[in-house]
Amino acid sequence: MKELFLTFEGPDGSGKTTQLRRLAESLQALGYDTVVTREPGGTPISDHIRSLVLTPDHKEMADHTEVLLYAASRAQHVREFIVPALKANRIVLCDRFVDASLAYQAYGLGISFDEVAAINRFATGGLEPTRTYLLDVPVETSRQRLLARTQSAGGEGLDRIEQKGEAYHTRVREGFMKILEQNPKRICLIDADRTQDEIAHDILQDCKQLLDRVFFPKPEV
Amino acid sequence: MKELFLTFEGPDGSGKTTQLRRLAESLQALGYDTVVTREPGGTPISDHIRSLVLTPDHKEMADHTEVLLYAASRAQHVREFIVPALKANRIVLCDRFVDASLAYQAYGLGISFDEVAAINRFATGGLEPTRTYLLDVPVETSRQRLLARTQSAGGEGLDRIEQKGEAYHTRVREGFMKILEQNPKRICLIDADRTQDEIAHDILQDCKQLLDRVFFPKPEV
Repeated sequence: MKELFLTFEGPDGSGKTTQLRRLAESLQALGYDTVVTREPGGTPISDHIRSLVLTPDHKEMADHTEVLLYAASRAQHVREFIVPALKANRIVLCDRFVDASLAYQAYGLGISFDEVAAINRFATGGLEPTRTYLLDVPVETSRQRLLARTQSAGGEGLDRIEQKGEAYHTRVREGFMKILEQNPKRICLIDADRTQDEIAHDILQDCKQLLDRVFFPKPEV
Repeated sequence: MKELFLTFEGPDGSGKTTQLRRLAESLQALGYDTVVTREPGGTPISDHIRSLVLTPDHKEMADHTEVLLYAASRAQHVREFIVPALKANRIVLCDRFVDASLAYQAYGLGISFDEVAAINRFATGGLEPTRTYLLDVPVETSRQRLLARTQSAGGEGLDRIEQKGEAYHTRVREGFMKILEQNPKRICLIDADRTQDEIAHDILQDCKQLLDRVFFPKPEV
């Protein structure tokens, strides 16, 4: 069993996309066959769904529609991209996965956790990450980083999810913490209110230990 | 309770869209405020999803993705269009609804019936049709009608679902019959291998009885 499926979670502005790229570069430098992908997206069909769900034009989108569109994008991504890559013994690093739906949709929008979880089990066929890096920053910090990104030259506007208010994003952060409590072995909490180098160092250390266990498992005594 | 939500089900080529329009015209002629809609579609977001799911370009679409996209389209349609129209005391006639997902996806594609049903309950919030007209024709008849439509001048090509083979469409028809067995009070089976006038007459007769019960209910003895 050498499948290694790593996901990065946390609010927009937590730096998870930067850290995912840094870990991918480190793993490639160590000689591991590594691919990077993201949700929603990762295949042509999933990218179509991504643009549908994120465009600020669709203000009338119902919460239940949003849950199902994310799940549809994920179902395609898992079957067309993630599972084939894992079967080819590639390390897959994915920017957001099921935990994001649970935090943003179940906790953020107030939709039944059990229903969102069941729909996502259907979407993924039960695939779970080997390890999830949850990057945590105070809500105010992530909002300030996002706004700075938007206001900087060439920055694009906030998408439909990012435009939601602070109460929503506070519920999302609390949701991530509850998901962490339920999955203490899989999820590794990362304090992301530090320098990028410090964060990258911690993630790489954890990942190296994981690699040792997966690729060079010690015989059970 | 004066809500009247009528759905039309059956294979492509069964004539259900024609019959839906004829019933709508009859109801309007009788003075009833009637609206016509269809699935997948019925709202701008749902129409976007419709084009995504039906384009023949997306041959790589996974079955689970298809289930979730139909459900997403339905979730939006129910909340943005159907429920508000019913609350405004309009009679809603809808071309396909949940039964189509159960027949085409659960029975046709071989996906768990219970999972497809649960996902659709989430999508609809539990909304069920008052009456469903199930138009039944032999698979060969519906396929011949479809091909004739495609070959006629100005006809468009078959969509991604219509292109599937005869074994699939036979499973779909059997699926509709099983759904009928499970819902004998709601679903009205219509032999659609007859003239359009004969079919329209039967549907209108049934609907008039339904209208009497809904709008002029007899006191219970």
